[in-house]
Amino acid sequence: MSGFVLDPRLAADSLPLASLALSELRLMDDGRWPWLLLVPRVAGASELLDLDRAQRLQLLEELDACARALRDCVRCDKLNIAALGNVVAQLHVHVVARRRDDAAWPRPVWGVGSTQPWLPGARDALREALLQRIAP
Amino acid sequence: MSGFVLDPRLAADSLPLASLALSELRLMDDGRWPWLLLVPRVAGASELLDLDRAQRLQLLEELDACARALRDCVRCDKLNIAALGNVVAQLHVHVVARRRDDAAWPRPVWGVGSTQPWLPGARDALREALLQRIAP
Repeated sequence: MSGFVLDPRLAADSLPLASLALSELRLMDDGRWPWLLLVPRVAGASELLDLDRAQRLQLLEELDACARALRDCVRCDKLNIAALGNVVAQLHVHVVARRRDDAAWPRPVWGVGSTQPWLPGARDALREALLQRIAP
Repeated sequence: MSGFVLDPRLAADSLPLASLALSELRLMDDGRWPWLLLVPRVAGASELLDLDRAQRLQLLEELDACARALRDCVRCDKLNIAALGNVVAQLHVHVVARRRDDAAWPRPVWGVGSTQPWLPGARDALREALLQRIAP
């Protein structure tokens, strides 16, 4: 997995949470949604199809653990899980906790309005709660 | 897997392609995008987390095969793969072939404009090409 460098746009939009076995786990820096990114450390990958079978299975495990943790930590009516990559091609998977009263419901979150700051303390509290579940 | 009934909104928006081991494979009836739906035949499932481990692994296999087939059959700059379900809660996974000159690029396709009819013959040609690869 040498040669992997996190895309600078993903780095700018999100904060590091943990280095999992395959993926960098990051929290989007947007107080409107509890929103995780998983970025497999596989240089040059832009599609799920660019992962080999073992990597795909590992990503599925990490996705599962992160989605469960997110659902445990926040009130959530639906999870949105997606690998899009139209703007930033580097393979990354979004896991977003959605609520029926959130700023975009029922539309997808991408490209909606402007990033909002977190309420004081909320980001750190979420980060701690997530890490207790994902990487205790 | 008894008790599964395809959500009538998914049924209305898409056409049957094949019954895979776990999922109903369908083609969205929108000529703007080559767009597949995989709907696992698991009654009551709305999240990926509602599948058991064997089902999740099977869905990953089917997703992989369908994404590869789609990429082989159409010109495509990026695949978009997503499980959203904000409007129709029944678990379904989208696989959309995106092009830089398509009607929504680089935005996601959901909720953009109105469905367009397929060009004559194009839908059946795509269906045949996909089925040759997925369920020969």
